[in-house]
Amino acid sequence: MGKIASFELTQEYLDSILEAIENQHADFIRESLDSVRHEDISALLEEFNAEQSKYVLELLEKEVASDVIEDLDEDTRVKFLSIFSPEEISEFIEEIETDDAADILMDLPVKVREEVIANIQNPEKSMNIIELLRYDEDCAGGLMAKELIKANHNWNVVQCIEEIRRQAEYVQKIYSVYVVDDQNKLLGRVSLKDIVLAKSSTKIADIYSEKIISVYTYQKEEEIADLMQKYDLESAPVINVQGKLVGRITVDDIIDVITELADQERNLMAGISEDVEVNDSVWMLSRARLPWLVIGLIGGLVGARFIGVFQKDLEQVASLAFFIPLIIATGGNVGIQSSALVVQSLASVSIFESSIWQKLIKTLLVAMLNGIILAGLVYIFVFFLYGPKLSFVVGVALFTVVMLASTLGTFIPIFLNKVGFNPALASGPFITTTIDLIGLAVYFTVAHILYSF
Amino acid sequence: MGKIASFELTQEYLDSILEAIENQHADFIRESLDSVRHEDISALLEEFNAEQSKYVLELLEKEVASDVIEDLDEDTRVKFLSIFSPEEISEFIEEIETDDAADILMDLPVKVREEVIANIQNPEKSMNIIELLRYDEDCAGGLMAKELIKANHNWNVVQCIEEIRRQAEYVQKIYSVYVVDDQNKLLGRVSLKDIVLAKSSTKIADIYSEKIISVYTYQKEEEIADLMQKYDLESAPVINVQGKLVGRITVDDIIDVITELADQERNLMAGISEDVEVNDSVWMLSRARLPWLVIGLIGGLVGARFIGVFQKDLEQVASLAFFIPLIIATGGNVGIQSSALVVQSLASVSIFESSIWQKLIKTLLVAMLNGIILAGLVYIFVFFLYGPKLSFVVGVALFTVVMLASTLGTFIPIFLNKVGFNPALASGPFITTTIDLIGLAVYFTVAHILYSF
Repeated sequence: MGKIASFELTQEYLDSILEAIENQHADFIRESLDSVRHEDISALLEEFNAEQSKYVLELLEKEVASDVIEDLDEDTRVKFLSIFSPEEISEFIEEIETDDAADILMDLPVKVREEVIANIQNPEKSMNIIELLRYDEDCAGGLMAKELIKANHNWNVVQCIEEIRRQAEYVQKIYSVYVVDDQNKLLGRVSLKDIVLAKSSTKIADIYSEKIISVYTYQKEEEIADLMQKYDLESAPVINVQGKLVGRITVDDIIDVITELADQERNLMAGISEDVEVNDSVWMLSRARLPWLVIGLIGGLVGARFIGVFQKDLEQVASLAFFIPLIIATGGNVGIQSSALVVQSLASVSIFESSIWQKLIKTLLVAMLNGIILAGLVYIFVFFLYGPKLSFVVGVALFTVVMLASTLGTFIPIFLNKVGFNPALASGPFITTTIDLIGLAVYFTVAHILYSF
Repeated sequence: MGKIASFELTQEYLDSILEAIENQHADFIRESLDSVRHEDISALLEEFNAEQSKYVLELLEKEVASDVIEDLDEDTRVKFLSIFSPEEISEFIEEIETDDAADILMDLPVKVREEVIANIQNPEKSMNIIELLRYDEDCAGGLMAKELIKANHNWNVVQCIEEIRRQAEYVQKIYSVYVVDDQNKLLGRVSLKDIVLAKSSTKIADIYSEKIISVYTYQKEEEIADLMQKYDLESAPVINVQGKLVGRITVDDIIDVITELADQERNLMAGISEDVEVNDSVWMLSRARLPWLVIGLIGGLVGARFIGVFQKDLEQVASLAFFIPLIIATGGNVGIQSSALVVQSLASVSIFESSIWQKLIKTLLVAMLNGIILAGLVYIFVFFLYGPKLSFVVGVALFTVVMLASTLGTFIPIFLNKVGFNPALASGPFITTTIDLIGLAVYFTVAHILYSF
């Protein structure tokens, strides 16, 4: 039976390869990597330095080495490729599908990029890569590959299979054959299954389906991900404004987009302002975390000035200070909950504006219910421990804060979304800092008024 | 040209259909829905009540209606199906692939479920569904469908194509043909592309690839999603412990898993304890949000008691209260940042234990750097505004809180992950509540010591 199970990368295995590199045991390395998938070799290489990786990559077949390079983490790849010559890099690029090739080239210094492109032997490939390089990374043009199978609607099935045979080397995975007219305008698609089942003489025009979802080169990755997820597509043809077929996006790229967007959202919610990973440098990690911490700090200093205004009340009733954490923590928690729910509903394509309003009213009803329950609980506790006056102050302030936090937590992400920011920004330190200040204002104002009587 | 663009659901369109339902204009409805994709009809139905939906579903062809039902939101579907008889439901189930059929049945009351199964005409289908019902929803067995194409390794390509033809009606999307031996043990796979390109007389044994990644029925959905994403698989065969082929998982299900896991993580980070959506009831939404709010509240009350211990210090130096929000907000922000980064690194399958430790040390270095910068900034501000003593107290307390929050933010998710909880839990109110209390303890202890001199 074949290698069914997934490959496990162990420390021993890693050590054995490192030792073999040290001692230049080329045959040992070649042999032990022979049965390993290229994705796993990439994972292994993440533990090596550039020289060690270069040694290993040169032992592999060009095709495998190219797959390995394509699968490396971006940062690692840039580091590794820096010790290869442009000629060497272009040899790898020849083997890599155009979308990934363009992504790899985008990360290289401009001069190296130009030299690599100049060294590509296949003129069609270099032309295709140059075309892809001009698209933004986060739109359909930046996601698509030029490799695809297309058939003229006047062909028959045999001609179509001939085309598949001709392109088989370049197109790793064929999901559909796209059907175009003489002007390369997209007409529809035929699934491979239909081709397998059709008679040789059948005309493509008779079996292709017009029910096809295509995307324009300029469409944003979020939109494409939504579309492909909604309609369960494993690939989508990309057309230009004239309706001409220019590329194809496959589901594996869309899965990466979905994961990236989720990572981005997590970072926003956690107040991390750059796209960092744990294995970035201390300085990069620190820099990514500082902006929101400093903003929070400024919020804290403003809060300090603000509480200072009520110094007299505090000196009279020191126990007022006891409930500062409770008020601002609850405000923060409520704000984040509200915004997270709105972010979720914004992500799932909402159809009717009217239903958004219904949702807002509901959010406020939920806030009121929770506000009453929480304020009630606190009132009872504080009543028995600190007496009626303070319990009234804390209860009223808490209810007000819950209502305000819910409202802001609901409206801020909707507003951010409208003006073109990622609404998840509102589920992070942004909202907690805002609500901290509002919570303090409400609490001390309520206290000041009630203690004045 | 065919319907290339995506369908836009407008309020006018919705109103026109609603009016047609009211007036029983069956032909109008049939006609206007004819060119609409089933996924879009599902979205439309989300705006209807059960009776309106039933009327529309009965106008559609059984096959389309089944697709529409399959695509509905779970809650909506349960509501709609409650007014169909078990016999009617079983007619839809006949048309739906086994994995989705099992999911739909799982949501129905047990009695209805049994009656629906008893009414299924195709005995193989009902047997398959019964088999799927016994798996947990979040493992490979619960995700897989029984529909797949398999070929015996002794067959030739023509026999294989015959089998595809025989099953074509039941298997919507064929990515690979799985190759098995006489005992149904999985040996490998042949891609459809290879079948298209092979000669009719070629033996399957000569063209199948042994390099195949399969999953066991008991493997968890997270693991399968990782695997399929890492190896760019569009489908994966599922085997039982004896290595026998029992089902197939397709990439669209895995995209749903990835999205669900991201939603779940967002909810955990936001302190929402149940899987709710904005269109759930006020009571459900309230209930999902209360647990963490109440825990936060208890934390706040404990904090109040705790500050009470230092009432004397507060009465002497009322300005101590000013910096409570700053200390606990910064602690919370740092804790969430740290835990979010660790959660991210835990999600991307980490290979070497040693590198986790390196990451921890790095986290602490980052914390120290940020702690020094933040404490320094605060020291300067507070020095000029409130004098040297308070600035020293706040600076020292802030640095200590940043270090502690980083450490806890890093270790708590790792610990939660070890003991089988979702580590994202640590990026929510859990960590902020903990760190609020620790921050208060550090702040007032430092203040008490320094003001005692």
